[in-house]
Amino acid sequence: MIEFRYLKPAGQAIFKDRYTKKAKELLTTWTKGKTISYGIVGLPLSKASISHSGAAFAPTAIREALQSYTVYSGEQTFDLHEEIVDFGDIEMHPTDINDSQKRIRIGLSDIFKQEDVKNWFLLGGDHSVSYSAIKAFREQYGEVGVIQFDAHHDLRNTEDGGPTNGTPFRRLLEDKVISGENLVQIGIRDFTNAKAYHTYAMDHGVTVYTMKQVRDQSLSNILTNEIITLAKRVDAIYLSVDMDVLDQAFAPGCPAIGPGGMDSVTLLQGIYDAAQHDLVKALDIVEIDPTLDFRNMTSRVAAYVLLEFMKGKSIGNKSVYIT
Amino acid sequence: MIEFRYLKPAGQAIFKDRYTKKAKELLTTWTKGKTISYGIVGLPLSKASISHSGAAFAPTAIREALQSYTVYSGEQTFDLHEEIVDFGDIEMHPTDINDSQKRIRIGLSDIFKQEDVKNWFLLGGDHSVSYSAIKAFREQYGEVGVIQFDAHHDLRNTEDGGPTNGTPFRRLLEDKVISGENLVQIGIRDFTNAKAYHTYAMDHGVTVYTMKQVRDQSLSNILTNEIITLAKRVDAIYLSVDMDVLDQAFAPGCPAIGPGGMDSVTLLQGIYDAAQHDLVKALDIVEIDPTLDFRNMTSRVAAYVLLEFMKGKSIGNKSVYIT
Amino acid sequence: MIEFRYLKPAGQAIFKDRYTKKAKELLTTWTKGKTISYGIVGLPLSKASISHSGAAFAPTAIREALQSYTVYSGEQTFDLHEEIVDFGDIEMHPTDINDSQKRIRIGLSDIFKQEDVKNWFLLGGDHSVSYSAIKAFREQYGEVGVIQFDAHHDLRNTEDGGPTNGTPFRRLLEDKVISGENLVQIGIRDFTNAKAYHTYAMDHGVTVYTMKQVRDQSLSNILTNEIITLAKRVDAIYLSVDMDVLDQAFAPGCPAIGPGGMDSVTLLQGIYDAAQHDLVKALDIVEIDPTLDFRNMTSRVAAYVLLEFMKGKSIGNKSVYIT
Amino acid sequence: MIEFRYLKPAGQAIFKDRYTKKAKELLTTWTKGKTISYGIVGLPLSKASISHSGAAFAPTAIREALQSYTVYSGEQTFDLHEEIVDFGDIEMHPTDINDSQKRIRIGLSDIFKQEDVKNWFLLGGDHSVSYSAIKAFREQYGEVGVIQFDAHHDLRNTEDGGPTNGTPFRRLLEDKVISGENLVQIGIRDFTNAKAYHTYAMDHGVTVYTMKQVRDQSLSNILTNEIITLAKRVDAIYLSVDMDVLDQAFAPGCPAIGPGGMDSVTLLQGIYDAAQHDLVKALDIVEIDPTLDFRNMTSRVAAYVLLEFMKGKSIGNKSVYIT
Amino acid sequence: MIEFRYLKPAGQAIFKDRYTKKAKELLTTWTKGKTISYGIVGLPLSKASISHSGAAFAPTAIREALQSYTVYSGEQTFDLHEEIVDFGDIEMHPTDINDSQKRIRIGLSDIFKQEDVKNWFLLGGDHSVSYSAIKAFREQYGEVGVIQFDAHHDLRNTEDGGPTNGTPFRRLLEDKVISGENLVQIGIRDFTNAKAYHTYAMDHGVTVYTMKQVRDQSLSNILTNEIITLAKRVDAIYLSVDMDVLDQAFAPGCPAIGPGGMDSVTLLQGIYDAAQHDLVKALDIVEIDPTLDFRNMTSRVAAYVLLEFMKGKSIGNKSVYIT
Amino acid sequence: MIEFRYLKPAGQAIFKDRYTKKAKELLTTWTKGKTISYGIVGLPLSKASISHSGAAFAPTAIREALQSYTVYSGEQTFDLHEEIVDFGDIEMHPTDINDSQKRIRIGLSDIFKQEDVKNWFLLGGDHSVSYSAIKAFREQYGEVGVIQFDAHHDLRNTEDGGPTNGTPFRRLLEDKVISGENLVQIGIRDFTNAKAYHTYAMDHGVTVYTMKQVRDQSLSNILTNEIITLAKRVDAIYLSVDMDVLDQAFAPGCPAIGPGGMDSVTLLQGIYDAAQHDLVKALDIVEIDPTLDFRNMTSRVAAYVLLEFMKGKSIGNKSVYIT
Ligand SMILES: [Ca+2]
Ligand SMILES: [Ca+2]
Ligand SMILES: [Ca+2]
Ligand SMILES: [Ca+2]
Ligand SMILES: [Ca+2]
Ligand SMILES: [Ca+2]
Ligand SMILES: [Ca+2]
Ligand SMILES: [Ca+2]
Ligand SMILES: [Ca+2]
Ligand SMILES: [Ca+2]
Ligand SMILES: [Ca+2]
Ligand SMILES: [Ca+2]
Repeated sequence: MIEFRYLKPAGQAIFKDRYTKKAKELLTTWTKGKTISYGIVGLPLSKASISHSGAAFAPTAIREALQSYTVYSGEQTFDLHEEIVDFGDIEMHPTDINDSQKRIRIGLSDIFKQEDVKNWFLLGGDHSVSYSAIKAFREQYGEVGVIQFDAHHDLRNTEDGGPTNGTPFRRLLEDKVISGENLVQIGIRDFTNAKAYHTYAMDHGVTVYTMKQVRDQSLSNILTNEIITLAKRVDAIYLSVDMDVLDQAFAPGCPAIGPGGMDSVTLLQGIYDAAQHDLVKALDIVEIDPTLDFRNMTSRVAAYVLLEFMKGKSIGNKSVYIT
Repeated sequence: MIEFRYLKPAGQAIFKDRYTKKAKELLTTWTKGKTISYGIVGLPLSKASISHSGAAFAPTAIREALQSYTVYSGEQTFDLHEEIVDFGDIEMHPTDINDSQKRIRIGLSDIFKQEDVKNWFLLGGDHSVSYSAIKAFREQYGEVGVIQFDAHHDLRNTEDGGPTNGTPFRRLLEDKVISGENLVQIGIRDFTNAKAYHTYAMDHGVTVYTMKQVRDQSLSNILTNEIITLAKRVDAIYLSVDMDVLDQAFAPGCPAIGPGGMDSVTLLQGIYDAAQHDLVKALDIVEIDPTLDFRNMTSRVAAYVLLEFMKGKSIGNKSVYIT
Repeated sequence: MIEFRYLKPAGQAIFKDRYTKKAKELLTTWTKGKTISYGIVGLPLSKASISHSGAAFAPTAIREALQSYTVYSGEQTFDLHEEIVDFGDIEMHPTDINDSQKRIRIGLSDIFKQEDVKNWFLLGGDHSVSYSAIKAFREQYGEVGVIQFDAHHDLRNTEDGGPTNGTPFRRLLEDKVISGENLVQIGIRDFTNAKAYHTYAMDHGVTVYTMKQVRDQSLSNILTNEIITLAKRVDAIYLSVDMDVLDQAFAPGCPAIGPGGMDSVTLLQGIYDAAQHDLVKALDIVEIDPTLDFRNMTSRVAAYVLLEFMKGKSIGNKSVYIT
Repeated sequence: MIEFRYLKPAGQAIFKDRYTKKAKELLTTWTKGKTISYGIVGLPLSKASISHSGAAFAPTAIREALQSYTVYSGEQTFDLHEEIVDFGDIEMHPTDINDSQKRIRIGLSDIFKQEDVKNWFLLGGDHSVSYSAIKAFREQYGEVGVIQFDAHHDLRNTEDGGPTNGTPFRRLLEDKVISGENLVQIGIRDFTNAKAYHTYAMDHGVTVYTMKQVRDQSLSNILTNEIITLAKRVDAIYLSVDMDVLDQAFAPGCPAIGPGGMDSVTLLQGIYDAAQHDLVKALDIVEIDPTLDFRNMTSRVAAYVLLEFMKGKSIGNKSVYIT
Repeated sequence: MIEFRYLKPAGQAIFKDRYTKKAKELLTTWTKGKTISYGIVGLPLSKASISHSGAAFAPTAIREALQSYTVYSGEQTFDLHEEIVDFGDIEMHPTDINDSQKRIRIGLSDIFKQEDVKNWFLLGGDHSVSYSAIKAFREQYGEVGVIQFDAHHDLRNTEDGGPTNGTPFRRLLEDKVISGENLVQIGIRDFTNAKAYHTYAMDHGVTVYTMKQVRDQSLSNILTNEIITLAKRVDAIYLSVDMDVLDQAFAPGCPAIGPGGMDSVTLLQGIYDAAQHDLVKALDIVEIDPTLDFRNMTSRVAAYVLLEFMKGKSIGNKSVYIT
Repeated sequence: MIEFRYLKPAGQAIFKDRYTKKAKELLTTWTKGKTISYGIVGLPLSKASISHSGAAFAPTAIREALQSYTVYSGEQTFDLHEEIVDFGDIEMHPTDINDSQKRIRIGLSDIFKQEDVKNWFLLGGDHSVSYSAIKAFREQYGEVGVIQFDAHHDLRNTEDGGPTNGTPFRRLLEDKVISGENLVQIGIRDFTNAKAYHTYAMDHGVTVYTMKQVRDQSLSNILTNEIITLAKRVDAIYLSVDMDVLDQAFAPGCPAIGPGGMDSVTLLQGIYDAAQHDLVKALDIVEIDPTLDFRNMTSRVAAYVLLEFMKGKSIGNKSVYIT
């Protein structure tokens, strides 16, 4: 538009500093055949949620939040410079939730086949999307270890409501997509689960860390140990971050908020630590409802989670995992 | 992206009905040499406002509101089908308001020179943008008649604050961009102006209709008469719609809300009537602050104003203006 | 709890005036074999909505709003005294929307078979519930005339999303539950529908009144004429009130708000007029999302709609419909 | 502070136009012995309210709203120029509501004795303050006629809760402060009162106009007739404006909102008409809860009510009341 | 309602998982003669508050919050299984605050006489309710030790406003309901109290822990020591939890919020520790105003406080208090 | 106003306890020639902000927040008793931001010349005000050391937007108002700055502490060391507190919120520590936008910051800085 002075595309960020690169500027579109570090896909499904949820708006909110942050880590004195290919969102069916879940699996399968992409960011949506995503991931990557950050087990029976956001890990175990010993649940909270599902977890060999254990043992230690253990058994590790693992003071925009959770610094450090292991190849973020949030605080944490993951990958397999 | 089933670009509208065209879909980008009916330009300046104002967010909010409406008029049983070229927004200077206003004038001058565009939609911003816009408009179109919908005269002196949103019509008169007899102010409200400025209006031959007069005489009659009168003297007519002409119940998102204003049906009918005259070639909408609004109600009215203008243009010079 | 002084059940209304009966106190529970005037059923489904909707919360919000009003009409100087049997809500399936819609139809069929109940209030939910409700109603009552208050036709094709809230009247026509000549749509708004669906309405003999026609001809006249006409052809008349027929200033809590709609006094008077005809036996209220509303304003209008219906019924077949 | 350039007192209005006088600038402090047109007193009591109410914040909110408007009437082309002496607020007792009500009566008696003040503005608070205010007013001015704008009768029994905001006119009648024939209630709404209190009104000779009557007969006619009638019997007329007489779309900040009420233009015109009669000497505004309002809309209407009253007084006994 | 398929009572929770018991399901109604572990009573008084307070809505909000949590403690791997008898709320007088306070005392006395109930949960209300509650408690249980979690001393003089929420502990001391040495105040914050009241506390032998002391010495240590000390002197210990002891980030819904307070994990752990002592028999929670809160966060903490108390009681007198 | 019982000035605090002195009561007006401890000036400029900011409302909000706190420190058992002279606010130019910044410098120069004032509180506004304030401060006090609490370097180039809130420390360095070695930045956060500006800081000898360093080394240690070092080189130390140094959970009302920041207890303790050094003579607080805040939480922290500074000064040069 060279004829027109002072014009810029409608609706873009008001201010541009020539030396500042916003994290959102890392987002690019896909070109076949090029090796890239990160791919991102939105999974805007929240009709599968037991409670009323606007988590379908989160993929957009999290991408927007990337505009609030830059690519520069002062702690490490480097820029995140690798692009994130934004594949867009999987399109949901307005009235057929099962079909929407199938679309997520098929759509991600198609995308995961792009072997040029090294790491995946999957933006929910309610937690039911993790079933479809992990199933597609397992098809491509082989045996999968899952580290689930969550206040809840998400091991509910499916008779009482079908494939809701309370069931993804139950369904993954029952469908043998993952085995119980390869599932680690971190941040499980009191008065937020049923005894039957804790028992189910124990019976199936799931590893469970309550919030008290996180406080007593430190997330960093827990993660290091569990990743080293998983790495012996699996081909790839998938992090599933249900934002309600955080205390309500730090993540006010999750449907199921409450006290007694993790603080955000701890979570961010944990993601940074985990991402340093080569086998950690995918991360989903779920259960953020931007319509309930205050000033997109929770999506801002989500954006930070992505950046800490990338920071960890930039450090690489160096310190914690070398024995 | 044909390799990937179910994918759609990130963040787009969730539902698409194949028979429904959203008004926002009329927006296109500019191609030189093609005759088009409507051009739209955003003027995101609100630092010139006397009171704290987020009107700089309105161009985006109004464009978004076009996504909530369709192109179809059931009253007239036709589709609005002519495209609206979206030229984008004029880029503002972060700390030099005078420069921002100059940019609006220069940027619009460049754009108005595209003689292929027949009608203009200019989206403020606070009302100070109308000075720059009308100045650029006058340079291109010749003698201009202005019909200002507003609770306020906007004829303040400029010593007390420079070129604020209280001054655009004072500055247009003083700089002889328009003459007082070619300025019609509609919707002026009690206890919302100073006597000095009413007197100024009278002294300069400005035509003023208070809200009581609008109620007693009907907006439709007022507009028809004034447009017929203006048409004898001017080359083009410019409508300047300060949304605070509406009552606070109908436009809760203007900075200067109050009771006693116009209802939205009256305004929309008025815009429809006015647009039917060939000389009416431009419309600006100003003083919407989306950060103060409730559910973007006021931007929704603004989107409707654009559509009613287009509906009127589709009817054309037929009924009211043929004598 | 006679041992305990000053105790009252938890959470009840703070103040009780011995001479004031709240409209909510008319709600009773069902006893077989007793003739009653009004039955109420909640249809808390909003996952069928094209846009994000919390309309599932409306049945509770509307019942609560009945607590804000009394049974006394000063205009008519009588108390509404007939009880409203509250049958409760139809239980929805968390992840199977088609099943939820089937449950509405089956559940209402069971209830409608209680021939002791003379009039029905059905509280949605999004507008998709009207398909199921009218289907069940038709099975019990015979040929049905429907008067739909709505800004939209709701005649969308079902290929693009299944049985959403945009399709109920299309599906009723296609499944021959009602015939087009027995469907009257009132309040249809510009830029809120697609041409294809207006055409569909015309092709199927649907009677359509736009908002302009409502303003020009008066709702009262329209309703009287249409009810007299329908009464010659049908066994019962069903009013379907999509609250978005109101202007956004009067119903800020509907998902699809906009300017140019009806004011609430007009709607309330219309319901009062319509209810006076004996064949009018059912009313649904849909498309209120309490999570978007301001101070439950829209649910308050809904509660008033119920009361005006009852006021009309108390007047009975007296004035307007006697020829 | 002449030593310091650019300093202004903390927290004052950011912008000052030398030709614009804000209505709030009319507020002055009291000086004994000077004849003044208007006195204003705040009555910040809302603990007497049946429902939770922050109406105690309204005196401050209404005074602030005067800052949003000017003294100039373009309809009449004159400035309101007479000062309003602000006597401040009556101080309430934190835990003794009866004492607070007594303080209002005693405090206002002291103030009303200043015979130099011609008209009074009393800013509630909940409606219970009108009992105390009218009692003090009657002591000073003799026989009083009251015109009450209200959706409610406020004639509740006092056994069920003491001197609440539902009882002021009952108590005034029972204590013979005013007689029923000198009480006119305007705007009474369906489903907002109990039959017992309508009957009480009738039995005591109270004149009642429902909203339907206001719509059918016009407020202007009603007021003119009633004021002429009252003027034959009383020494002074007191207007009591419960803001919930307005429809919820126009006064969203009242505790007891609902549809079917008056619009604000009608109310403002009515106050203007009424104030033109010499015997109209006092006006209270009650039942605005700024903590529930949207952008102080309801307090803005209240500020306008004061200004319309003053505009009417400036016109004086000229037109409507001369026979 | 066996005739009607798919029906459920109006307004109940949308989703039911057969294996999950919500904490709210522990609530039952009272039956004479049965030994029960917990009784709950609502004390919805907030008109005694110095500042505007909607704490009267808290009993309902806290009970509702119990619906968000389950009975299962994963930390302890047991279900809370003992019922909580909900006695309902004490009914307040609309305009007589002293009478309301008397009703609390009398009403609780009646209830406390049910010797079958072992522990009490009392839900305020502003802090003034603790005076009445502790007075009734002392009558039944003998010498009482009180551990008050609070940012404030609540030892104000009563001349300046009567029995407000600033005075309960002053009145308890002056009326010799408790002795100063049996009152422990924890969480007292800088710039939140007056020197006179700190001095009063010291003069009367009250034990005071500031927030700095809580940080330096750990709440757990403080509580253990104080409970052991109190247990030598008193017959029962009463915990009074003013939620404003928490930092504003963790309890945004208290009227008197501020920085520098306790975090919620610390408080919850403290309640759990304290409840393990047999003499701890009652807990009140006060000063939550749900109308000011964000997403009922503060009521959610309150619900958790009840559950941690129950968890502590389930552990019993085992660890910390056995010497 | 002795004639009038129960009257108090309009709008003042509802409750007064005779023994409680609110922090706001320390505010007094200036009298020449009297030695005073603290002066306060408001700098209500936020039009220089890169992003939309209502920080111009913060000076009023912070002063109001002082009304929520008292003068008494229970930790230190003394009252803050020295008055704070409130000089008012510098008046801004509505449309000339450079002029506004010049006014701040000139206005503060005039005020700083009052050598009777020992310490200064400067309330922004966006961070651009610190340039003008520190420039005026340096003119009066000689060589200045600055300790900046901030998530950002604020060392942006000025070509891309002029003297915005991203540039104050760059401009101070370039204009040689301060030298890089005398600037200490504390709380710098990852993904919140550009590499170019970190490099600029390093190249100019600025001392930078990231949030990780703050967590690892403790703020108290960092401050003590840096103040001791600065004290050897400078004549006075100025603390510049950008509230966004705090985590979004503790300061939700800053324009640029995010996770990973400082908690408020740490900041308050740091201010207390720093203020104990005699050379620390000024403190500004910037980047609070009350229109975005929740319940003025962030302004409440700001008020506390002032009080902790005063508490530190009351302790004086005693402990940490004596070597
Ligand atoms: Ca989960
Ligand atoms: Ca979860
Ligand atoms: Ca204007
Ligand atoms: Ca205007
Ligand atoms: Ca519809
Ligand atoms: Ca509709
Ligand atoms: Ca009333
Ligand atoms: Ca009323
Ligand atoms: Ca307390
Ligand atoms: Ca407290
Ligand atoms: Ca800064
Ligand atoms: Ca900053």
